[in-house]
Amino acid sequence: MTNLHTLKIAYIGGGSKSWARSLMNDLALESRISGKVALYDINYEAAVQNAKIGNQISQLEEAKSNWKYEAVSTMEEALSESDFVIISILPGSFEEMASDVHTPEKYGVYQSVGDTVGPGGFVRALRTIPMYVEIANSIKQHAPDAWVINYTNPMSLCTRTLYEVFPEIKAFGCCHEVFETQSLLAEVVKEFLNEEVAQRSDIKVNVLGINHFTWVNQASYQNIDLIPYYKQFVEKYAETGFEKEEGSWKNSVFSSCQRVKFDLFKKYGVIAAAGDRHLAEFMPPIYLKDPETVSSWKFHLTSVDFRKENLKKRISENEELAEGNHKFEINSSGEEGVKIILALLGVEEVVTNVNYPNKGQIEGLPLGAIVETNALFRNNTVQPVFAGRLPLDIHNMVHRHVLNQESALQAALTKDKQLALNTFVNEPLLTVSREEAEELFDEMLKNTKDYLPGWAI
Amino acid sequence: MTNLHTLKIAYIGGGSKSWARSLMNDLALESRISGKVALYDINYEAAVQNAKIGNQISQLEEAKSNWKYEAVSTMEEALSESDFVIISILPGSFEEMASDVHTPEKYGVYQSVGDTVGPGGFVRALRTIPMYVEIANSIKQHAPDAWVINYTNPMSLCTRTLYEVFPEIKAFGCCHEVFETQSLLAEVVKEFLNEEVAQRSDIKVNVLGINHFTWVNQASYQNIDLIPYYKQFVEKYAETGFEKEEGSWKNSVFSSCQRVKFDLFKKYGVIAAAGDRHLAEFMPPIYLKDPETVSSWKFHLTSVDFRKENLKKRISENEELAEGNHKFEINSSGEEGVKIILALLGVEEVVTNVNYPNKGQIEGLPLGAIVETNALFRNNTVQPVFAGRLPLDIHNMVHRHVLNQESALQAALTKDKQLALNTFVNEPLLTVSREEAEELFDEMLKNTKDYLPGWAI
Amino acid sequence: MTNLHTLKIAYIGGGSKSWARSLMNDLALESRISGKVALYDINYEAAVQNAKIGNQISQLEEAKSNWKYEAVSTMEEALSESDFVIISILPGSFEEMASDVHTPEKYGVYQSVGDTVGPGGFVRALRTIPMYVEIANSIKQHAPDAWVINYTNPMSLCTRTLYEVFPEIKAFGCCHEVFETQSLLAEVVKEFLNEEVAQRSDIKVNVLGINHFTWVNQASYQNIDLIPYYKQFVEKYAETGFEKEEGSWKNSVFSSCQRVKFDLFKKYGVIAAAGDRHLAEFMPPIYLKDPETVSSWKFHLTSVDFRKENLKKRISENEELAEGNHKFEINSSGEEGVKIILALLGVEEVVTNVNYPNKGQIEGLPLGAIVETNALFRNNTVQPVFAGRLPLDIHNMVHRHVLNQESALQAALTKDKQLALNTFVNEPLLTVSREEAEELFDEMLKNTKDYLPGWAI
Amino acid sequence: MTNLHTLKIAYIGGGSKSWARSLMNDLALESRISGKVALYDINYEAAVQNAKIGNQISQLEEAKSNWKYEAVSTMEEALSESDFVIISILPGSFEEMASDVHTPEKYGVYQSVGDTVGPGGFVRALRTIPMYVEIANSIKQHAPDAWVINYTNPMSLCTRTLYEVFPEIKAFGCCHEVFETQSLLAEVVKEFLNEEVAQRSDIKVNVLGINHFTWVNQASYQNIDLIPYYKQFVEKYAETGFEKEEGSWKNSVFSSCQRVKFDLFKKYGVIAAAGDRHLAEFMPPIYLKDPETVSSWKFHLTSVDFRKENLKKRISENEELAEGNHKFEINSSGEEGVKIILALLGVEEVVTNVNYPNKGQIEGLPLGAIVETNALFRNNTVQPVFAGRLPLDIHNMVHRHVLNQESALQAALTKDKQLALNTFVNEPLLTVSREEAEELFDEMLKNTKDYLPGWAI
Repeated sequence: MTNLHTLKIAYIGGGSKSWARSLMNDLALESRISGKVALYDINYEAAVQNAKIGNQISQLEEAKSNWKYEAVSTMEEALSESDFVIISILPGSFEEMASDVHTPEKYGVYQSVGDTVGPGGFVRALRTIPMYVEIANSIKQHAPDAWVINYTNPMSLCTRTLYEVFPEIKAFGCCHEVFETQSLLAEVVKEFLNEEVAQRSDIKVNVLGINHFTWVNQASYQNIDLIPYYKQFVEKYAETGFEKEEGSWKNSVFSSCQRVKFDLFKKYGVIAAAGDRHLAEFMPPIYLKDPETVSSWKFHLTSVDFRKENLKKRISENEELAEGNHKFEINSSGEEGVKIILALLGVEEVVTNVNYPNKGQIEGLPLGAIVETNALFRNNTVQPVFAGRLPLDIHNMVHRHVLNQESALQAALTKDKQLALNTFVNEPLLTVSREEAEELFDEMLKNTKDYLPGWAI
Repeated sequence: MTNLHTLKIAYIGGGSKSWARSLMNDLALESRISGKVALYDINYEAAVQNAKIGNQISQLEEAKSNWKYEAVSTMEEALSESDFVIISILPGSFEEMASDVHTPEKYGVYQSVGDTVGPGGFVRALRTIPMYVEIANSIKQHAPDAWVINYTNPMSLCTRTLYEVFPEIKAFGCCHEVFETQSLLAEVVKEFLNEEVAQRSDIKVNVLGINHFTWVNQASYQNIDLIPYYKQFVEKYAETGFEKEEGSWKNSVFSSCQRVKFDLFKKYGVIAAAGDRHLAEFMPPIYLKDPETVSSWKFHLTSVDFRKENLKKRISENEELAEGNHKFEINSSGEEGVKIILALLGVEEVVTNVNYPNKGQIEGLPLGAIVETNALFRNNTVQPVFAGRLPLDIHNMVHRHVLNQESALQAALTKDKQLALNTFVNEPLLTVSREEAEELFDEMLKNTKDYLPGWAI
Repeated sequence: MTNLHTLKIAYIGGGSKSWARSLMNDLALESRISGKVALYDINYEAAVQNAKIGNQISQLEEAKSNWKYEAVSTMEEALSESDFVIISILPGSFEEMASDVHTPEKYGVYQSVGDTVGPGGFVRALRTIPMYVEIANSIKQHAPDAWVINYTNPMSLCTRTLYEVFPEIKAFGCCHEVFETQSLLAEVVKEFLNEEVAQRSDIKVNVLGINHFTWVNQASYQNIDLIPYYKQFVEKYAETGFEKEEGSWKNSVFSSCQRVKFDLFKKYGVIAAAGDRHLAEFMPPIYLKDPETVSSWKFHLTSVDFRKENLKKRISENEELAEGNHKFEINSSGEEGVKIILALLGVEEVVTNVNYPNKGQIEGLPLGAIVETNALFRNNTVQPVFAGRLPLDIHNMVHRHVLNQESALQAALTKDKQLALNTFVNEPLLTVSREEAEELFDEMLKNTKDYLPGWAI
Repeated sequence: MTNLHTLKIAYIGGGSKSWARSLMNDLALESRISGKVALYDINYEAAVQNAKIGNQISQLEEAKSNWKYEAVSTMEEALSESDFVIISILPGSFEEMASDVHTPEKYGVYQSVGDTVGPGGFVRALRTIPMYVEIANSIKQHAPDAWVINYTNPMSLCTRTLYEVFPEIKAFGCCHEVFETQSLLAEVVKEFLNEEVAQRSDIKVNVLGINHFTWVNQASYQNIDLIPYYKQFVEKYAETGFEKEEGSWKNSVFSSCQRVKFDLFKKYGVIAAAGDRHLAEFMPPIYLKDPETVSSWKFHLTSVDFRKENLKKRISENEELAEGNHKFEINSSGEEGVKIILALLGVEEVVTNVNYPNKGQIEGLPLGAIVETNALFRNNTVQPVFAGRLPLDIHNMVHRHVLNQESALQAALTKDKQLALNTFVNEPLLTVSREEAEELFDEMLKNTKDYLPGWAI
């Protein structure tokens, strides 16, 4: 029996400027558990700053629990005796990310995010996998019984690496993309059934696929099958897109009008359950043909320059906060990490979507591949829920990515450049000639070579 | 969207003297749904009587919903337009059941129930399968979209037959045996943790195995792992057995002191999650060697004479009730049928144990075999929860029964007497010589031959 | 026991101008079996003509056996009481084939054959599958125990359809492409080991993949591992290509210099075991970018005009032969059909490559998919030989085609145009925009719509 | 390319009194290969003696090749640089074997061999597995690329252990039991078809099952299906048994009249393809009820006293031979080891039965379990041939043993006495009470405890 008030959470990537704050907020709003959080980051100062912020949050009046935050200087120190491990790292710097996202543009290949699939996601994976090998080995040694929650992208390959290195690990990956789909379905209910859905989780969905290319083939609210209503909704909004406030999608680089999602429904008959920016990257260059096409589908390319700017803002904001110059407000993040932690502590059973090795929960996908479906979380256990089989045409697209991911993993582990190249050219987004693809591959590898020790680059 | 107040339930075996009443009570206590129940039984009079009883219950003041009961004279009439189908039949009469249970005694083979495995369960299966072939075909024709809940034993083979004949059927089997284990674990909590468990379902268990030979390898209450406490409990009560009131096990032929369950835990390290009467029949004749041995383990052989007496009582009680000579009391049955119906109607999500085709929820057992694990019930969907793998030694015993069940099904479908015999002699309970086994087999088949048309008997 | 001298062979597509003659020759050269061949063709006259030719061959002095050929006017008549069924049909006419091959050229998509994959192979499959449904049903009814040998392309989907419709069928597909690879390896032996290989089958290869995209990962001659020698051979000839007689590849539209095969070895490290014309179509447009690229890789686009011309020649040649105006020469065809027939009759055991449902002979590919590996042929039995697993990068490419084939089958069976389109756009050769792909798809379907009854075209 | 005349064979158990001589003879009779044989045995003197014998055989005039035999004192020395490894050891001494075979007799449990299954085979396995762990580790270190041929019983578990410890090992197990079935089928041909079969291997059989409980469901000679003839043969000889010379079965403890084999065919409809002494032990005590029953089925219990006597004879014979006092005769052993070695060297392709991890060659049995089927042997490769699925009733019996073997392996590796006991009581031959079984188990473990270091005995 774990004592609910002397918990230890290890946070790998504890200098994070965004996820870390979400966690701090959510922990502060939950009275049933407390303990300490050890923040580890290769940027130690950033961890120290977050510790300061966290401890201030704990002391706010509206905080319902008192968590103690501490920056630590080694992974071992963070992991030792931890009950939970959260991993949310930036693999490499924005320099490498800029190469991931923008180098392909020279060849006419555009990516809206560049962290999951496509040439950018692929190269990011090659760079990230060795880091996850190290983390997995460290967990094996220092916290073999801890529950491990991954937030880093590429989600599937990060989680897959953990299991490859330490098969007994108790790890899974959390992602909020499906939540947005539930929220969208709540809008459908509002529009056609004239009813306000009390909370997102009242929309029941059957989730199946892989992270960021997840699909929902059953959706209901109470005893109402929502698929026929969603169909009407798509028919109504396919051309214009849907947004709560007109034109608001232009205000944020992360926003969209769901036109990609709607178009995929028209083509495949099943709800694509991730944001348009992610979905587009799993497909051939239909939605990402060029910047004009992207605009016409009403979503955005996220430039790394934007990210750099954005980060600067968050850094200075954090500094202010750390120094206590700012008034805090504790807001629930909308993430489910803390809810899941509670479930794993036996406080409250939860069924939600999760990235986890395929035990058969998706028929027809290889066992062991990291897939996204619902799972039942209970005291010290996560159990995937059987989700069935994807429609054939979607299955084929998903399966192609699953196989590419497995190849990417093996290429990364064995530092096999030829296998890496042969996998790279399989990316659906990459329809340039083989010669150009090879050139691009070489250039991208060179740009990230500091993170590829042992490779013949 | 199904209208929650114009539901139709078809009850196959609607003349039933016990399960039918449980359902009537549970429906009456639930305000959120209502409609009509069509009772079909080969004994039409019994169905008429139950309809009378049901309609009286509906009119009681404490009834929270108004269900209309009607006896119908054909299966088609019952099934047409039904939303749910409940099957709970007696396959054959008590004459055949007497042969199942008592003929083997001539050869020194004792059975405590005789309806699931062992020579009796096996022959009962041969007799029941053709009935289920007929029911499945009728459902396929008249109610292909209805949810089908089976209560008849042998549970696994009845459900398996439904899927063999109509693979798209939406069927599963419900059984209360695991509930008893949850209740026992609540006693463990009380004894060692000094806490009253509010409701049985607060005990979370991971269920895996096959019906009546089900196992629980994880059990928790809140954040407390109950396995170590159960171990202590077993150590304390292995010899004496456990009962709430001393000596009470002697009062009912259905009672026991859990000594078989405790002994299995000592031998196999995992909780056997069915009653001792059922568990004993899946094993070699350890607990069922002879009547004295049964007594020493503090459980009972259920004689069919007892069942006949018991039935007589229930019949006269029913007559009284039907005539309105008795005051009714509506008591919750403790069964979960109505709770599951509510979940399938989207009213309230439920996770509970169920008998369902293996989709991979139990690793290592053949796909398609009917296994018992937890499942998630939601609007119009049942999804098994991944339960893992049984310990090797238990797996071997369970797998043997699974294979025997598959052989029994094929033997019944093809009326293959040699295959039937070769399966019969695989029953662990049957350790007599091959010659005696063949004699016994012949005699038992003869006794049930009215229900085996087309067989060379 | 089958009488070896009263055999009946049914030939579906018996008016064939090429395969039929190969069979006649090979049968004539084999003294150990004889009987009759029933030729069925939708072009009855062509079958009559072939019967005449066949009967003349039988009477030649050098014929070692006396086969009687007869044209029949119904499939039933051909199939009834047959021991073997050979299927080699032209699905549709050269008009549809011209559309398959040349319509995509308008969009810059070039195909060297157009009968297996790519847009042409896909549409050909849609047209062929209903014909194979009819054939399979006819075999089920009239010749359920006969051995069925398929020669029609698309090989995998034709064979797959037979099994889908009649799962108990005893069918497999034969293709000579791998033989060429054995012959090439014999050249390797000659070049580097200075030894003449007596017969092609002395080169032992492990075959795995799918028809026309088959791979060889082990090759030996006696106790010599040939892979290292093949590597040297590729290094030597990768640029120039290899041909026995310089410049001879230009003389025939079916010839090549193996440069595609060599390039694939350089990229993937395993021998691609089909002709360059076929291999190129399974890949993205590397080798088929445009006619100039094709020339530079030293192989050809086969125009349907050429096929038409070629056919004319063969028709007039056949007429001459049928009328007895020509002297026959009986030459062994190099095909293995008759050798396999002998094996299935118990005359002589054979191990050779075959297209057959996956029973696990290729790890990681779906069970039931038609794969190409070695198999052991013996009296009345074909048993695939376990071939192992493809290297990851090749596996990914092969698997993609396997999934597309399964989708194509389902689209054809259910006449689902959307599924067909979603599969069509998955063809690696097709890198045009989605809009163009849809246009092309529509045009190609229209051109073949006479063979797509029931489709919404 | 391996030089065929500088081969090195390592013989683990090289002091063997019987198998070693078979090998020496067979090697001497084969001119196409030669080299040296390193004999390693824990009894070094026995190896020295065998080396002397081997070298004398090599110098005989009729020897077609010159092999050099050498006794070595460490396993490493034997294994280093070897091309082939042969393992044929006696696990423990005749003392332990006497306990395996005869201790159960005190409880009325009789075994005809006691080296494969049953209580004796099980305990022998527990003792042998640690030895095979050591051998596997040594091969991994010193001869990872060598081909390893196992002859030791229990065959399945020895081979399984090699793969468990060193998954990349190139190992398989050879057994001659199926050959006897082919010879018996040659007798069937003689009797009903009046034809002499030239050689045993002209009888083609489809082999499936596990070692010593192997089955043949297809058998043919040329184009003749032998199953119907075997059926007649069984009908004719079921009661009397079959022997070439009347009464000859009484002359050798290893002989039988095949009555068990025939009876199994009558019960299960498929040919049991091992000797009666082995087959009987896999079944409940039908044929092994007591010594009288054994006699009535016309086979023998092999007492260990007999083995001891027999060994003495062979030892003195060997001494004579080693001293050169005896004239040698070189006789082919009838074993296929050398034939298989030739095939693995690329000299001549062979299809024969072999014990090998299940890759899917038997449907429905767990992947990785050691099963017996045909395989194709070629240069440096063994590839199982797809054998299909056993009939349900036989499958159930075979599967039970497969699961027990897996449990036995895990019990032996983890020294888990409870798991061992729970597996022991699953042996079909053991129908005594649980109490007696536990007593027997304890006694047998004690008798072999010198070979069970680390166990709590």
